Amino acid sequence: MTQLTEARKGRITKEMRYVARQEGLKPEVIRRRIAKGEIVIPANTGRKRIKWCGIGKGLRVKVNANIGTSPQKVNTKNELAKLKAAQEAGADTVMDLSIGGDLKKIRRRIISETNLPLGTVPIYQVIINTVKKKKFIAKMTKGDILGVIEEQARDGVDFMTLHAGVTQRTLEILKKKKRMTGIVSRGGAFLAEWMIFNERENPLYEEYDEVLEIAKKYDVTLSLGDGLRPGSLADASDEAQIEELVTLGKLAKRARRAGVQVMIEGPGHMPLDQIEANVELEKRLCQGAPYYVLGPLTTDVASGYDHIAGAIGGALAAWKGADFLCYVTPAEHLRLPTARDVWEGVIVTRIAAHSADIAKGIKRARNWDDEMSRARGDLRWRKMINLALDTKKAKRYHPSLKEDTCTMCGEYCAIKRVKEYFR
Amino acid sequence: MTQLTEARKGRITKEMRYVARQEGLKPEVIRRRIAKGEIVIPANTGRKRIKWCGIGKGLRVKVNANIGTSPQKVNTKNELAKLKAAQEAGADTVMDLSIGGDLKKIRRRIISETNLPLGTVPIYQVIINTVKKKKFIAKMTKGDILGVIEEQARDGVDFMTLHAGVTQRTLEILKKKKRMTGIVSRGGAFLAEWMIFNERENPLYEEYDEVLEIAKKYDVTLSLGDGLRPGSLADASDEAQIEELVTLGKLAKRARRAGVQVMIEGPGHMPLDQIEANVELEKRLCQGAPYYVLGPLTTDVASGYDHIAGAIGGALAAWKGADFLCYVTPAEHLRLPTARDVWEGVIVTRIAAHSADIAKGIKRARNWDDEMSRARGDLRWRKMINLALDTKKAKRYHPSLKEDTCTMCGEYCAIKRVKEYFR
Repeated sequence: MTQLTEARKGRITKEMRYVARQEGLKPEVIRRRIAKGEIVIPANTGRKRIKWCGIGKGLRVKVNANIGTSPQKVNTKNELAKLKAAQEAGADTVMDLSIGGDLKKIRRRIISETNLPLGTVPIYQVIINTVKKKKFIAKMTKGDILGVIEEQARDGVDFMTLHAGVTQRTLEILKKKKRMTGIVSRGGAFLAEWMIFNERENPLYEEYDEVLEIAKKYDVTLSLGDGLRPGSLADASDEAQIEELVTLGKLAKRARRAGVQVMIEGPGHMPLDQIEANVELEKRLCQGAPYYVLGPLTTDVASGYDHIAGAIGGALAAWKGADFLCYVTPAEHLRLPTARDVWEGVIVTRIAAHSADIAKGIKRARNWDDEMSRARGDLRWRKMINLALDTKKAKRYHPSLKEDTCTMCGEYCAIKRVKEYFR
Repeated sequence: MTQLTEARKGRITKEMRYVARQEGLKPEVIRRRIAKGEIVIPANTGRKRIKWCGIGKGLRVKVNANIGTSPQKVNTKNELAKLKAAQEAGADTVMDLSIGGDLKKIRRRIISETNLPLGTVPIYQVIINTVKKKKFIAKMTKGDILGVIEEQARDGVDFMTLHAGVTQRTLEILKKKKRMTGIVSRGGAFLAEWMIFNERENPLYEEYDEVLEIAKKYDVTLSLGDGLRPGSLADASDEAQIEELVTLGKLAKRARRAGVQVMIEGPGHMPLDQIEANVELEKRLCQGAPYYVLGPLTTDVASGYDHIAGAIGGALAAWKGADFLCYVTPAEHLRLPTARDVWEGVIVTRIAAHSADIAKGIKRARNWDDEMSRARGDLRWRKMINLALDTKKAKRYHPSLKEDTCTMCGEYCAIKRVKEYFR
């Protein structure tokens, strides 16, 4: 049984009830939207955890933080510090994208340390194992893939990115219509390498029914990855990206038919003026499946500040219907993020998500802002600091809670001078 | 003579020619739009300077950085450090908003140290002088105001914010329809205080013709201030704000008729879904005058990160037609900004402006991104770092220029693995 199969049978699970309470909606609304595939609750049946979250139509926009080792930086302590930073900064979910060290051990450690829904990209572990044991990516077998997916599902992973839409057909398009930045998705690149060498179809695509069986068994939510997402503005909304999205729409349908919860991943790099159309296309081609976007980054030149380019694109995408924002950190395109980068990435992405919630009229979203502004109008500093998204930083900037103004204007504070007249 | 009067006579000035070259447009296009009031070039006739910039229709979106002392923080060295930071970070203009210390001296020092167009809010100096000499704001006279405006114009100030739209009528509205955050504009609050105490009309409104005379004499561009801009999402697009905008539209018309260049200031705090309508309203009510917005901030709770809330709103506003973004710094709502805050504010606002330029198809805007992405596709690190908006930060994050990947993926770099196939 999965949330989806239960919802279709008209049953309201404890997870649905929890999400309904969190969102201030009726459980029946949540159930109905899950049944339609418009909302997912990533919740592996084998995992004990506290903080479920719903992702999709009419819900608060959720924020994911990626952590994980790289071949050059393997330090479990660092990863746990990043996990802690992500949680404290208010991430709704975490993905372990480790590709260095003992992946199984690191993943299990992370699962044991967090109560947030956890996502992974199983192909990473498959590839790392293959390279370790057989030297060449090309030697990976379908059995290797299904084995890792089952192992991770058994470990309690709640959602998995699968780049099942990278097909021989899309690679043909890529070969004909050269891109500025080719393939920038790690998972997409691994699969493409295997497919080119073996001259065979994407094993995730070919064995999709078997993947669905495992996912159903543990109620793992599938996150259909965009292996061909644009890595530059020049490549945005090109034929390869859209062709893959069409395929993902078909795969989403099959997942639902099999009783498996599914969401769709999106770009990437994209000019502001293409974002709304991309969200609409996803909703249409994937029958309203929750949309999980990485950014999108609205410029390619913001290295060191890509979290901000991502917040600009993410806010617009979420306002127009994207449901789930994968954070971007200041380290994007430059290095593996530190705990400090993780903190900043989550905070900034939450600003984007919250701005979208307000614009969409998500229930209770504006209450927070109104409370803050009332405190601001009354010059109540303690309350303002406590209500700030990042209380620690706000306090660092305004350490004294006694004064009735700040060092910006002092006695010439506009609010102070005329508040008796207009409030 | 002003740029506007010259343009109307069909004359192309050296400033127009300079701006045309900067923007890659024909001088005649610039001239025609200046004549219509759709573009301004803030350029005091008495000032020697190098970097003119055009603001308005079809031009690259410009970024302003506010600097200046406060009563509690008077340190000219700090202000010069902030000026330097703003310039190095790539601000197009600077405003001196000092309200502490010897304002005349500070302003003259700043003018002598910068080649950027300089803006001020003369009412600040008027008020500070009044309080110093006569103790009460209410004792300020019309002569005091005109005197300071003339003095600042003589010093070479290129554009001045005048809150001439705060009228008795708008104060009546504010009194009837209480706001969550009342008046948050410093200039607006000063004028309101004077108007309430003296029970008289706004002197800037009443003496507008005399102000226009001075402005014309020196070709000072007027920036009609939004003294009633919303200081919270709750107050956005309310009657007071829109009533003031209607007045500003009429004042803009009068300025043009007098041969004075004019732009309009806008909010403030505003939910994402109201921004486009606000820009359209400004363009309509003010006959296409350049729109100069502060933010807008899309949430009230981002203290410490208001530059990011401002970048989200600013990117959308600029894409939809705002021409000039006033930066917001991380210190907003908390303290007087430091040079570090100024740097971050400018960089982040430039990301918003550039994202909008790309979406609007501003000439050559995308070239920069394409060059970056080509370098990224080739894994040419030195070039990537040099092309980054903030080269220093990018280098700090990626100090080694030798490796062909970064610590994010190492040997598993997607671009590296498959680039021979798809590029």
